[in-house]
Amino acid sequence: MIKHFLSLASLSQIDLIGLIDRAQYFSHQLKQPHQINPILTNKIIVNAFYEPSTRTRCSFEIAAKRLGAEVINFVPENSSVKKGETVYDTLKTLESLGVEAIVLRHSDDHIVEELRPLLKVPLINAGAGKHEHPSQGLLDLLTLVQEFKTLKGLKIAVCGDIKHSRVAGSLMVAAKIFGMEIHLCGPESLVPTPQESHIIKSDFDTVLPVVDAVMMLRIQLERHENLDLNPTTYHHQFGMNHRRQLMMKKNAIILHPGPFNRGVEISDEMVEHPQSRIFKQMNNGVASRMAILEWALNRSSL
Amino acid sequence: MIKHFLSLASLSQIDLIGLIDRAQYFSHQLKQPHQINPILTNKIIVNAFYEPSTRTRCSFEIAAKRLGAEVINFVPENSSVKKGETVYDTLKTLESLGVEAIVLRHSDDHIVEELRPLLKVPLINAGAGKHEHPSQGLLDLLTLVQEFKTLKGLKIAVCGDIKHSRVAGSLMVAAKIFGMEIHLCGPESLVPTPQESHIIKSDFDTVLPVVDAVMMLRIQLERHENLDLNPTTYHHQFGMNHRRQLMMKKNAIILHPGPFNRGVEISDEMVEHPQSRIFKQMNNGVASRMAILEWALNRSSL
Amino acid sequence: MIKHFLSLASLSQIDLIGLIDRAQYFSHQLKQPHQINPILTNKIIVNAFYEPSTRTRCSFEIAAKRLGAEVINFVPENSSVKKGETVYDTLKTLESLGVEAIVLRHSDDHIVEELRPLLKVPLINAGAGKHEHPSQGLLDLLTLVQEFKTLKGLKIAVCGDIKHSRVAGSLMVAAKIFGMEIHLCGPESLVPTPQESHIIKSDFDTVLPVVDAVMMLRIQLERHENLDLNPTTYHHQFGMNHRRQLMMKKNAIILHPGPFNRGVEISDEMVEHPQSRIFKQMNNGVASRMAILEWALNRSSL
Repeated sequence: MIKHFLSLASLSQIDLIGLIDRAQYFSHQLKQPHQINPILTNKIIVNAFYEPSTRTRCSFEIAAKRLGAEVINFVPENSSVKKGETVYDTLKTLESLGVEAIVLRHSDDHIVEELRPLLKVPLINAGAGKHEHPSQGLLDLLTLVQEFKTLKGLKIAVCGDIKHSRVAGSLMVAAKIFGMEIHLCGPESLVPTPQESHIIKSDFDTVLPVVDAVMMLRIQLERHENLDLNPTTYHHQFGMNHRRQLMMKKNAIILHPGPFNRGVEISDEMVEHPQSRIFKQMNNGVASRMAILEWALNRSSL
Repeated sequence: MIKHFLSLASLSQIDLIGLIDRAQYFSHQLKQPHQINPILTNKIIVNAFYEPSTRTRCSFEIAAKRLGAEVINFVPENSSVKKGETVYDTLKTLESLGVEAIVLRHSDDHIVEELRPLLKVPLINAGAGKHEHPSQGLLDLLTLVQEFKTLKGLKIAVCGDIKHSRVAGSLMVAAKIFGMEIHLCGPESLVPTPQESHIIKSDFDTVLPVVDAVMMLRIQLERHENLDLNPTTYHHQFGMNHRRQLMMKKNAIILHPGPFNRGVEISDEMVEHPQSRIFKQMNNGVASRMAILEWALNRSSL
Repeated sequence: MIKHFLSLASLSQIDLIGLIDRAQYFSHQLKQPHQINPILTNKIIVNAFYEPSTRTRCSFEIAAKRLGAEVINFVPENSSVKKGETVYDTLKTLESLGVEAIVLRHSDDHIVEELRPLLKVPLINAGAGKHEHPSQGLLDLLTLVQEFKTLKGLKIAVCGDIKHSRVAGSLMVAAKIFGMEIHLCGPESLVPTPQESHIIKSDFDTVLPVVDAVMMLRIQLERHENLDLNPTTYHHQFGMNHRRQLMMKKNAIILHPGPFNRGVEISDEMVEHPQSRIFKQMNNGVASRMAILEWALNRSSL
């Protein structure tokens, strides 16, 4: 059976715990002088990124290489996409070329669900649509587990453009599975109304003293051309800064999926503050994607 | 002697048979769990694609990696081409950097013939000019041999923009070498007048019941801005669809070099129809390019 | 201690001699049938090129692969740079992803000095700012050593847009270290006033008969939109051609960092003239960058 990695919502708790465990294992391994862990030797993985992304693309590429796999970068701009080819036909072409997995980033909300039953190679969601960004979700869980040993009972504030955030989407799914409480904060127009009891709409400054982690989200300026957003005002109302950090518990941590806009949703000095785990998250991204690639590729013939 | 792979026309029948045999061998190998066949270990191949192409570039890159070679992707847009460097100087630079072969795609009709005597590393035509696309030619031959065991006596209809098709060019060359009969079909303005006896201008619907294979060509809309082409009319006149498939022999096959425009030269349901070999062709592309790379690189020092 | 490779000026003479020696060693090795020299096996190097460059990027990529390393190409256009991320944050991200070195090309004059104290992985200057292009400097030194066995006492003319040339910058630094004499030639507005005694402003035709090498520089037309530059006039006044080659010593050599504009700063027939070492320089570029990567990566944990 093909093991697509499409969303945290489609995984069982057991699958997720297994993935976090393996990610933790790879995370330890990556602290040693680097060796290739030859789990995926001779396999070719294609990165098909229809939307730009430094960190996710490089992270998957590095993860694949650390497992001994080869990576092909498919760049839609330089391709037959210009000639009108559909995503399905392009991915079916890549499948026909014999690649062992397709890592997909795409803006279409429904694309992974449409492609799921049609592909014979594992499809890995590297940010498709606006619902979930499951590999980011896994690295966030890994970062929380490393910090707090457990996920159950953790309280997390998410602050910013939650409506358009697939990062928040995956975190809310994981919260339900593992018994975490999520507080949604940010501008009224960008915060959805919670549909489930573990998700609470909260005032940012009110909730700061009680949460274990704060996930700051980038205001995706390129998606809000009509939003009358003043960076200084936004920062004052919803930005992480020294004043707010002082309101947090001493062992609470600051998260951000990146890329961040210094001075907007997070002040300069908070990015590498001792309570920040932002670059740790990036580091965990490689370990998490190694776990995902292993999960999808190594067992897909069972 | 440097073994450039520039056209099927420049190869002997013995060379071509050897290439088809090796491509067949690699095709079988690719059906097994993938192993690197270390024929080109330690060699570096550069993909120099002046025109975009998903399938051909990825196909060559995968073929190279399956043989243990490393691949450098040279992207003209991001390069000194902007600074006015000629193709010759760019390729001579790549040669000086020590790459073992150059895979070239370019729009200029004469570029490979100009470069041929000047380069000291094998040059591989991955679609240069509009005369030939020899690696596509080889994979078409492989697909036909797998289907019919022999090439001699096969009748093939080619339908579409034949005048601008290097795919048709290579097929017509191969047809002469192997004794196949080619029927040219399509809009009057896009079908050239045959110059050789094995090539016949035919009415598409008339010839369909007698051919062994139909090669559908994409109307390259981006090259025909002035052509008053209505996709629906075109499909009715020259498109492959259920009505025409019923006219074909039961064991005749449908080919297309891709990318295809569903609903124009081929209907949706014909792309993955049991008589279609379109995705098989793509799969055969990797095996064929493995044979080409081996041929050009492994014996070029003899 | 992290060993950044930022400029020739920051290296000791002993370091430089060591690098030239190793580059020479790799140069000999590259003449043999290629083997991977597994000095950097399991290491991942990222090419972060904010300015386009065929030869330097491919040269570093090939050098890395010849040493067994893997290479990630980070292309700013397709990335979070669009989302407003700073260079520092991007490189810190790449560092967090666990890459072992960052090869940087950037237009900012101060970027490498700013980044130097902030990065925990070796940063390699592949052309940043307009002061130095140290890997080009090393390959020029290697080319001169191969030709003349020694550097001390060599006289070199540099002709062209010296003010905007980081190639000239590195050569002038090396000249001081190794006791070479540099003659600056070219249009008055593009030649700076020498500040040191080993650098002399000279008339091109006057100095040609006494120099051991002539380094021709490309007029970077894309940076001089307001310069009223007629290519024919320029070639007549400052171009390398048959007339000027006859004025040179018989064993003097012609250098050019490339890409060159045939007919402007160098005539067609001079590019591959027996006294030209232009393509030799490119070849030496791979050997030099192997030495640089080895220097920066292999000893950075001492």
